[in-house]
Amino acid sequence: MRGTSRDIRTANRYRLVRQAMAESPVSRPRLAAATGLSLATVATLVGELLDHGMLVDAGFEDSGGGRPRGLLAVNPRGGALIGVDVAETHVRVEVVDLALRVLARAHEELRHGEHQPARVAGRIAAAVRAAAARAAAGQRVLGAGISVPGMVDREGGVSVFAADWGWHDVPLLGLLAERVPYRLYLDTPPRACLVAELWFGAARGRDDAVVVSLGTGVGAGLALGGTPHRGASNGAGEWGHTALVLDGRPCQCGRRGCVESYVGAPGIMRNLRETSPDSPLLCPGDQAATIARLAQGCDEGDPVAAQVLRSTAGYLGAALADLVNLLNPEVIVLTGWVARRLGPRLLELAREAVARHALRRPLAATEIVLSSLPADPVCLGAATFALEGTLAALGRPGAGVR
Amino acid sequence: MRGTSRDIRTANRYRLVRQAMAESPVSRPRLAAATGLSLATVATLVGELLDHGMLVDAGFEDSGGGRPRGLLAVNPRGGALIGVDVAETHVRVEVVDLALRVLARAHEELRHGEHQPARVAGRIAAAVRAAAARAAAGQRVLGAGISVPGMVDREGGVSVFAADWGWHDVPLLGLLAERVPYRLYLDTPPRACLVAELWFGAARGRDDAVVVSLGTGVGAGLALGGTPHRGASNGAGEWGHTALVLDGRPCQCGRRGCVESYVGAPGIMRNLRETSPDSPLLCPGDQAATIARLAQGCDEGDPVAAQVLRSTAGYLGAALADLVNLLNPEVIVLTGWVARRLGPRLLELAREAVARHALRRPLAATEIVLSSLPADPVCLGAATFALEGTLAALGRPGAGVR
Repeated sequence: MRGTSRDIRTANRYRLVRQAMAESPVSRPRLAAATGLSLATVATLVGELLDHGMLVDAGFEDSGGGRPRGLLAVNPRGGALIGVDVAETHVRVEVVDLALRVLARAHEELRHGEHQPARVAGRIAAAVRAAAARAAAGQRVLGAGISVPGMVDREGGVSVFAADWGWHDVPLLGLLAERVPYRLYLDTPPRACLVAELWFGAARGRDDAVVVSLGTGVGAGLALGGTPHRGASNGAGEWGHTALVLDGRPCQCGRRGCVESYVGAPGIMRNLRETSPDSPLLCPGDQAATIARLAQGCDEGDPVAAQVLRSTAGYLGAALADLVNLLNPEVIVLTGWVARRLGPRLLELAREAVARHALRRPLAATEIVLSSLPADPVCLGAATFALEGTLAALGRPGAGVR
Repeated sequence: MRGTSRDIRTANRYRLVRQAMAESPVSRPRLAAATGLSLATVATLVGELLDHGMLVDAGFEDSGGGRPRGLLAVNPRGGALIGVDVAETHVRVEVVDLALRVLARAHEELRHGEHQPARVAGRIAAAVRAAAARAAAGQRVLGAGISVPGMVDREGGVSVFAADWGWHDVPLLGLLAERVPYRLYLDTPPRACLVAELWFGAARGRDDAVVVSLGTGVGAGLALGGTPHRGASNGAGEWGHTALVLDGRPCQCGRRGCVESYVGAPGIMRNLRETSPDSPLLCPGDQAATIARLAQGCDEGDPVAAQVLRSTAGYLGAALADLVNLLNPEVIVLTGWVARRLGPRLLELAREAVARHALRRPLAATEIVLSSLPADPVCLGAATFALEGTLAALGRPGAGVR
């Protein structure tokens, strides 16, 4: 059961550091006001974070004649975070400091047929080592977060299931621990996008947020009550595999009529084929090229492209309305390469469709926006797994620094 | 933003009292072990609850020669809770003590066309006064919880929207405050069913639970992270109005293809008409009679009844699978008069349908059960609103007793 004192202290640390990262330099009273924590709690947590070098004193605030208030800032030299985005065809690594400046990047290709677990672990380790070597010397590494597709057992560090690679119960963190000298944290891409939005994006400061990823696959990260909702087996968020049309299109999951089969990239290609089977917009076998042409077609006023965007947005809006009606969130953030590519035009049409399908009152409480995070939210989110892990460990003996 | 120290203390009180109600008499160390709270926190909370007369000392536990451990019990004389179920055609009231014994009941009819807010408030007040008068004299009343259908602004005590009565922004608690001398708490029937299951039913001790109500309308109460998920405007849980068949059957909400239009009582009547338009099982205009005949038909081996139950369970299972895939709950509890009526047979077939539609791994983590609470979970849940309100108020000056 959650909500032990340790969980509460961890959640308070997240809240405080999130606020300090958003608004540095900042005074203790301002942190208390912005987070809802008591001044005493803020003082304790700040002391701990100063001790661990994650915050630093940053002078005094002019208080108009009263006792000057000390200011705090996030310490850019307080540690580096490594974020790893493992996808079907590549491993991307970013190293950021606590001010979120990118210190180094690295990239490794994953070739077709090269998906044996040990091989992938080798590629990840090589990319992590390369990026860490490029990052400023002397910066201690707080940890590395790894995002891998499929289903993940976070606590065990196991990739439970990754369809594209035929992985079942691969002890990925175990394989990596031999090769990478940092604390490691594992989760999925939708979860990475969610924590990136919670810490740095449109979901910051929101209690109830849904981050919808539109790509080849489709998923949702749910933040309910201010923290990620993971579910009984860390499997929550399979919005892509909820019914939109019972017994509709076949979906890659084996079921029919799932949301993903209408608004994932292959589903959008099918929307295009159904609209115009011989359209030159269609690049068979190449999702990225087709979506790019579709976006360009919309720019150029191509009627087929416009029609496909409308039908896709219609499906998307109906499916988003289900999230509005069921969860009544404050914000839904659209992310993923398809959302980035089709952008504001898709958003506008999807909002109109949501308005046709959602109940009026929950709809009035929900904003729907595009992610405004930089290009690779998965790397940033994965780095945030390491930040969260570091903050969670602060209370434990011998924790924090290594 | 949630998670202030006051919220945390309230959540800890809930957890402790819930455990004490489940397992009385009980020692402090056992309460600490069962709730995950520290012994110090348990000691503080227990002291507070003893002061307020909600717990009492209940002798000592045999500790095999060591220092005897004090036992605590819920105090049946610690206060009465009033639960009010306001439905389209009636007001039902139950008064329970802290040991959940029903001290008194009352009932008022609401006649067709008698739904002016002041009139309904008058009926509610009459029923509450009658029941309170019948309850044991001298028992202090801690509060009264009121469940009303539609959408509710809890904090403001306003019935925001109740379709059956044409209510918009009715300040129900304001109207009642003139007539009823108790602290009042307002929420909806699905929320009442949810808290009843969380405190006393199949969701007790679970972090992530969904309580699905099947009746004329269909809704879901969501408990995520151990507490009800209410959403940005207290509107979460409109699972009945999520898409099962895009552009399918018209729904009373104005949309098409909603879950409710397939598995609510009117939807089941339509399943029956589609199976056998002239079936003698159909009692036009009488949902309760039709569902009763359907249940009886299944008992007697009627093939049409069996077919309708199968098709209904097929729709229900597909819609429950969406909850499994999206939320990955530990348990889904079926409640409401339709679920009670069609019982284990519907459950069995629905489980089979869920297994066809849900992803394997989240499914493996989810139990699906019928509610085992007594007949009127709405009254019990509404009384629990008052219990929760009393516990939340304990920390505030002058709170608790009146």
